[in-house]
Amino acid sequence: MYGSDRVYKKVEVIGVSKNGVEAAIQAALTKAHNTLEKVSWFEVQEIRGHVGDDGMVSEYQVILKVAFQLKD
Amino acid sequence: MYGSDRVYKKVEVIGVSKNGVEAAIQAALTKAHNTLEKVSWFEVQEIRGHVGDDGMVSEYQVILKVAFQLKD
Amino acid sequence: MYGSDRVYKKVEVIGVSKNGVEAAIQAALTKAHNTLEKVSWFEVQEIRGHVGDDGMVSEYQVILKVAFQLKD
Amino acid sequence: MYGSDRVYKKVEVIGVSKNGVEAAIQAALTKAHNTLEKVSWFEVQEIRGHVGDDGMVSEYQVILKVAFQLKD
Amino acid sequence: MYGSDRVYKKVEVIGVSKNGVEAAIQAALTKAHNTLEKVSWFEVQEIRGHVGDDGMVSEYQVILKVAFQLKD
Amino acid sequence: MYGSDRVYKKVEVIGVSKNGVEAAIQAALTKAHNTLEKVSWFEVQEIRGHVGDDGMVSEYQVILKVAFQLKD
Amino acid sequence: MYGSDRVYKKVEVIGVSKNGVEAAIQAALTKAHNTLEKVSWFEVQEIRGHVGDDGMVSEYQVILKVAFQLKD
Amino acid sequence: MYGSDRVYKKVEVIGVSKNGVEAAIQAALTKAHNTLEKVSWFEVQEIRGHVGDDGMVSEYQVILKVAFQLKD
Amino acid sequence: MYGSDRVYKKVEVIGVSKNGVEAAIQAALTKAHNTLEKVSWFEVQEIRGHVGDDGMVSEYQVILKVAFQLKD
Amino acid sequence: MYGSDRVYKKVEVIGVSKNGVEAAIQAALTKAHNTLEKVSWFEVQEIRGHVGDDGMVSEYQVILKVAFQLKD
Amino acid sequence: MYGSDRVYKKVEVIGVSKNGVEAAIQAALTKAHNTLEKVSWFEVQEIRGHVGDDGMVSEYQVILKVAFQLKD
Amino acid sequence: MYGSDRVYKKVEVIGVSKNGVEAAIQAALTKAHNTLEKVSWFEVQEIRGHVGDDGMVSEYQVILKVAFQLKD
Repeated sequence: MYGSDRVYKKVEVIGVSKNGVEAAIQAALTKAHNTLEKVSWFEVQEIRGHVGDDGMVSEYQVILKVAFQLKD
Repeated sequence: MYGSDRVYKKVEVIGVSKNGVEAAIQAALTKAHNTLEKVSWFEVQEIRGHVGDDGMVSEYQVILKVAFQLKD
Repeated sequence: MYGSDRVYKKVEVIGVSKNGVEAAIQAALTKAHNTLEKVSWFEVQEIRGHVGDDGMVSEYQVILKVAFQLKD
Repeated sequence: MYGSDRVYKKVEVIGVSKNGVEAAIQAALTKAHNTLEKVSWFEVQEIRGHVGDDGMVSEYQVILKVAFQLKD
Repeated sequence: MYGSDRVYKKVEVIGVSKNGVEAAIQAALTKAHNTLEKVSWFEVQEIRGHVGDDGMVSEYQVILKVAFQLKD
Repeated sequence: MYGSDRVYKKVEVIGVSKNGVEAAIQAALTKAHNTLEKVSWFEVQEIRGHVGDDGMVSEYQVILKVAFQLKD
Repeated sequence: MYGSDRVYKKVEVIGVSKNGVEAAIQAALTKAHNTLEKVSWFEVQEIRGHVGDDGMVSEYQVILKVAFQLKD
Repeated sequence: MYGSDRVYKKVEVIGVSKNGVEAAIQAALTKAHNTLEKVSWFEVQEIRGHVGDDGMVSEYQVILKVAFQLKD
Repeated sequence: MYGSDRVYKKVEVIGVSKNGVEAAIQAALTKAHNTLEKVSWFEVQEIRGHVGDDGMVSEYQVILKVAFQLKD
Repeated sequence: MYGSDRVYKKVEVIGVSKNGVEAAIQAALTKAHNTLEKVSWFEVQEIRGHVGDDGMVSEYQVILKVAFQLKD
Repeated sequence: MYGSDRVYKKVEVIGVSKNGVEAAIQAALTKAHNTLEKVSWFEVQEIRGHVGDDGMVSEYQVILKVAFQLKD
Repeated sequence: MYGSDRVYKKVEVIGVSKNGVEAAIQAALTKAHNTLEKVSWFEVQEIRGHVGDDGMVSEYQVILKVAFQLKD
């Protein structure tokens, strides 16, 4: 594929899951895959989370950029 | 709402107004609310502006990221 | 145009071309112009590229933000 | 005062107000002044906000660093 | 809660655990929850770690900011 | 104007005012307009301020870059 | 060891694994340990990944800096 | 020249040209050379550009820092 | 010590001294050591200073983060 | 290739050429290809240059990171 | 002085000295004080240096911003 | 030398010394000079240090990039 002119677009999404960083990434990718475009790759921008009254992480929030090819 | 899997998208917009920083923010939010999606929150990226021949600010330009939830 | 309220949107795209940095920029702009919106300006975010087995650049990849006005 | 050895501490706080950026800054300073220490200066780190169902800013959130002198 | 004036404080802590990134985050949150304040959310600043003589990660070190509300 | 070769210069200035962020920006622009050059646009770099003994903002300090065209 | 003059070197490596972030870190460390030097610590620079046609993460790519002591 | 005390100044300029990135750099350098000082070196800060109605780059805008020695 | 769960806190302080960068660092550490906690390490964030009417540095101001372990 | 564990290394090099940005990139890649390893990709970090007594660019200096796979 | 409207300008200079970091800072300040304006404060941007054939630092180069008040 | 094609490499090293910032820089340069290559210049990335039980700096740690020319 290298060497042929082509164009990609990057979109910023936030995946949220109580099951850890990888689960939050996959949540965002699944949603982007189903509603936006077939994603080629992702880049993590930021990892955050909410904490419950018991001091435990109640959810991970991962901000990512997802990239997909713009087709002709 | 915390604790349930969900996905947000962030979009970068620029609001322009001659009435100050807050007015430029609201201009961008109103447009995004009407043409894109119901916005949940915003993050200011950059504050700039144009200057008239009299040396007065003729408009404020505020670059923001606006975030909204991707619905099922 | 300065002084009237208006709103712009920025989108991140990646142009790829084996013909140099400017050609990769133009590839991204042409695609964005045809499939997204009439672009007003662009900002280069990053310049990268792939290298062939002979050690020569086989393609330039330029990540840019492109901006266009949101019409009423 | 310049020229004498002394030490300052910086603390990061977030002021929230529905009345604009300056009001959110002052809210954070008043609280810090009352509960932490007499503040000498502040530095804005980030401006964000929440948006209501009507697309209007419902509150401004300003993250700041506030600095105060550590007394002997 | 949105729309009422309030103030948060952010504190920087480092959690250390040999059991992975999430475990190091939780270690920091549990300690902050017990000795500082009830934490509302966290933001990961940096992920680092120590490596043993066998080339295996012997501990993960996660630098985070934790935020809590300053009560009246 | 677009398409003709031209050159701009950017200068970093700090405007100070007790009347808010926009007033500090305008203070810097008025001074630059009168003593340096006719300014075309500005970019905010940083917002800071001094706090009085009563915990109230006694002045806003806004660091900006101002740009003007270098004439032939 | 603190207090004696010594010198470290940092090298940037990318670990790739389909088994998660920690596995990608360990893959890079094992390779660096075997082919470069005994690593003392690591610092994560960036977390990225590739996505398969089914929208699932097919591999995690973690860019790290690894540090080791330069021996006499 | 190394080893003798001396002082340089850096100034930020923007070169504009429709003929590509290098032409925009040279436009800024020629103007700085003629109106400011004999430039020693330059550092590119940012590459941007304007796009015409036909989707083609109508001009490149390159922001640079130029450095020159302050003579006695 | 590596391998056991533990938590550190980082605090931002500014040391001021007319005797140079290292003296300003030590001033901040001595104050933090006496009034806050036993410091484990420091990281310089920024070096600044004030200049007297004669053009000589009248004091160095060094912003640092100091880290200390949170005990059980 | 995606999906199999592997490790890359990144090295920072500076290519210098009087013939433009792309020529400086290729100069660095050719040298790295001949003396270090077969390069897979590159990332531009910074573009600088030297200016002659006539105000013309006498050479472009491009700082890049080049990446190559660490073989078993 | 706090509370009265006023404007400062910042200029970027590089001080060079073989006698250490503080000597390079003072070299830049003395030159700026004599040829530009009475400097109020400085901020270190970067510390670099040249190395002689014997591996010893032959000079320190400190990039700083110096600030001075724009008088009426 | 300017104007001829050539290539440099940058390597990241950490010098450690209890005798101050300049001593830590020189420690790193001496080691790099003896074991790696003849260094042309250095750039300071970060200044840190360890603190003893008495609250005094027990060592300075300076992270630098050192650059040397790749010979034919």
